[in-house]
Amino acid sequence: MASHKLNCMSETATLASWILSNRIESVPADVRHEALRAIVNYLGCALGGSHDEAVDIAIEALGPYSGPPTAAILGRAERLDPLHASLMNGISSHVYDFDDTTPKNYMHPTSPVASALFAYASAYPVTGRDFIHAFIMGFEAEMRIGNAVYPAHYDVGWHITGTAGVFGAAAAIGKLLGLSLQEMIWAMGLAATQAAGIREMFGSMAKSFHPGRAAQNGYSAALLARAGFTAGEHGLEGPRGFAAVQAAAYDLSKITAGLDVDYELRANTYKPFPCGIVNHPTIDGAIQIHRERHPAPASIAAVRLRVAPLVLDLCNQTGITKGLQGKFFVYHGAAVGLVRGKAGIREYTDEAVNDPAIKRVRESATAVGDPSLTEDQANVEVELVSGEKLSRFVEKSLGNIHRPMSNQQLDDKFRDQAVLALPAPQVERVIELCWQIDEVADVGELTRTAIPV
Amino acid sequence: MASHKLNCMSETATLASWILSNRIESVPADVRHEALRAIVNYLGCALGGSHDEAVDIAIEALGPYSGPPTAAILGRAERLDPLHASLMNGISSHVYDFDDTTPKNYMHPTSPVASALFAYASAYPVTGRDFIHAFIMGFEAEMRIGNAVYPAHYDVGWHITGTAGVFGAAAAIGKLLGLSLQEMIWAMGLAATQAAGIREMFGSMAKSFHPGRAAQNGYSAALLARAGFTAGEHGLEGPRGFAAVQAAAYDLSKITAGLDVDYELRANTYKPFPCGIVNHPTIDGAIQIHRERHPAPASIAAVRLRVAPLVLDLCNQTGITKGLQGKFFVYHGAAVGLVRGKAGIREYTDEAVNDPAIKRVRESATAVGDPSLTEDQANVEVELVSGEKLSRFVEKSLGNIHRPMSNQQLDDKFRDQAVLALPAPQVERVIELCWQIDEVADVGELTRTAIPV
Repeated sequence: MASHKLNCMSETATLASWILSNRIESVPADVRHEALRAIVNYLGCALGGSHDEAVDIAIEALGPYSGPPTAAILGRAERLDPLHASLMNGISSHVYDFDDTTPKNYMHPTSPVASALFAYASAYPVTGRDFIHAFIMGFEAEMRIGNAVYPAHYDVGWHITGTAGVFGAAAAIGKLLGLSLQEMIWAMGLAATQAAGIREMFGSMAKSFHPGRAAQNGYSAALLARAGFTAGEHGLEGPRGFAAVQAAAYDLSKITAGLDVDYELRANTYKPFPCGIVNHPTIDGAIQIHRERHPAPASIAAVRLRVAPLVLDLCNQTGITKGLQGKFFVYHGAAVGLVRGKAGIREYTDEAVNDPAIKRVRESATAVGDPSLTEDQANVEVELVSGEKLSRFVEKSLGNIHRPMSNQQLDDKFRDQAVLALPAPQVERVIELCWQIDEVADVGELTRTAIPV
Repeated sequence: MASHKLNCMSETATLASWILSNRIESVPADVRHEALRAIVNYLGCALGGSHDEAVDIAIEALGPYSGPPTAAILGRAERLDPLHASLMNGISSHVYDFDDTTPKNYMHPTSPVASALFAYASAYPVTGRDFIHAFIMGFEAEMRIGNAVYPAHYDVGWHITGTAGVFGAAAAIGKLLGLSLQEMIWAMGLAATQAAGIREMFGSMAKSFHPGRAAQNGYSAALLARAGFTAGEHGLEGPRGFAAVQAAAYDLSKITAGLDVDYELRANTYKPFPCGIVNHPTIDGAIQIHRERHPAPASIAAVRLRVAPLVLDLCNQTGITKGLQGKFFVYHGAAVGLVRGKAGIREYTDEAVNDPAIKRVRESATAVGDPSLTEDQANVEVELVSGEKLSRFVEKSLGNIHRPMSNQQLDDKFRDQAVLALPAPQVERVIELCWQIDEVADVGELTRTAIPV
């Protein structure tokens, strides 16, 4: 290779070199713990989404083209080759839009990386320590690349979860495969030239295809590079590289600034509710009222919401009949919070939307926009038939980076989803192993537990 | 589906509808004949490139992840699943940059479409008539989409062969699979959201990966759509669709204008020489001198070239040792033309570059830039040791759209490449079948002949 280019240390070479030379001992403890939280949140989402129609269809369409079925699909009995399993894990984990998000650049960062890593770990032995380290490297790579091109890249219409995610998968799998520096630079190039996914697909199954394909293509990039398939060496910063081609404005210094010190995992957030994030403070307030007072649905005369004006622009409808619609309308969120005290995947099914008690409460609700409220705030007031008023103001919505979900809340979220794919006792075993993943001798122990027996 | 959108007939829907409703009888005879020429040219390139190191490496890296080996890789004994075979065919056919080109938008249009179609036809029965029809539809789809976003899309750094090519593969395979209109619209969306490939990869194996991945991903898009995997319905024209995201300026009317009348196959050209196109007129002139006078290499005292100034900017070097370098320097082209009377793949090997006779002639050559010459023109003058001067002015280079290669010249080009993969008698059988491909009962008959026995 052109060694002078390495001496110049382009962003591609610097990042590749860092990924390869980083040692897990140098990763701060809080970052390693956040990686566990990200993995727990991811695995719950992957299990919860694993039986969605999108996954069924993708397996039906592409399963016949799978190689030897050495890899597991999280939450499912079918087995595929590790590349196809990466794709399916990616679809499962993102299909309900319930996976993690980084407010800095709108990525859903864990899905592309972990979807590839779990597929790999289900087929080949890998220690938990190496697995978590590869995850942290992949997360860091994709986030830094995403930060470099955000917001111009996102604003023009790229689905950054797919486009930057492919680098994360390549970095993580490349780290596990022990690529040389030259090979990792090629892997980054092969990722750059497969970076795809447009926001025009939002609202269709193709949205969840993006992190899946990113996982699969990043994994392929690492395999090709290891075998000696060459690529341009300036995939990120070259004049026709990822940044120049896919962003009208970008800052490459964000790829390399503060490596070893600033970890992007600290910027990760987890959604407590599988619906539009602007509805979260309202749901949060409704659940708090439910927990404190347990008002019977029949006792609720009216629900009055005060919300940021944007919420009414986006989410102002009560007459709905489909679960998917429920995700986008604030009154449904208020109703499930008050009636069921939770808003998990099952609160956004057709059944829940048509549940008479929920429907009654939803239709009793009104909202006013209040410009003094942020999108993280809401006030929920319930007037009971007795005339009594219950009220709760939410200052910072749960899941916000300043009010993160607790480990216990992540467990509850995990259980609520995982039981859609696995028997309850098995769910407990998975969650227990998942929190210990960095200590297991072989992550295969976890992946074997995360499929139906 | 949202039928009002179809009534509006977006570009995506119009194109999808046209692909499905078009009948082969309505395709003009000259277009059908040009399709045969494109296929003959493609198949020769795919056979010629099939044993390049890039193909070996891709098979080594990804072969273990192949599904049941129901499909042939053109020119090779290994079998893979049809999606992986599409990828390998794409790499083979483009790796020497010897495949067809459209001066209108710089696409290499046949590779993404035919690479998928040949993989399909090697695995499933398909009549030659349906095969050629699907090819024409795919070619038309990708070229029209490419035209709509060219030049802004190409100029910023997209490798249009990959980005637009994926639509061609989706259209062609979708046509063979008999997709419904809704499914074809989804297939276009799934193609749009996988459109990738950047010019930063030029000069590496990743360049030939682009048409391969386009073939494979377009094929996958059609499979997913058939199974009901949904996608955005405005993949081309939507506010976050392919054109808006991947081109600073575009003209969507080029996607639909003149359907059924203007066929883009008429704009296709075939390269006579596997090297930078600006060197072609010089090589052409040198070959003409060889054919007329057969000057012995030892009799050549000096070679003087008069070329468009751009040629010297790009291709002005004699001291070379590698075959790949030979492709980019005009003096080597002049030398092989004069010494061997041809410039095929074997004239761009390390062996040819270091052939003492070719080296002597190459090093005797000088060139001057002449601003009065177009890039299609060159003057080649040879001074013999006797003092006699032989000279040839090339007005329009062979392969230019105004001076296309003849069918006979395509045959010669085919043979010169195909013998790298197949025994000579088999080559004759393949070429014979290839010109009759639109009449065969099953294209499998041709693909079985196009692999080593």
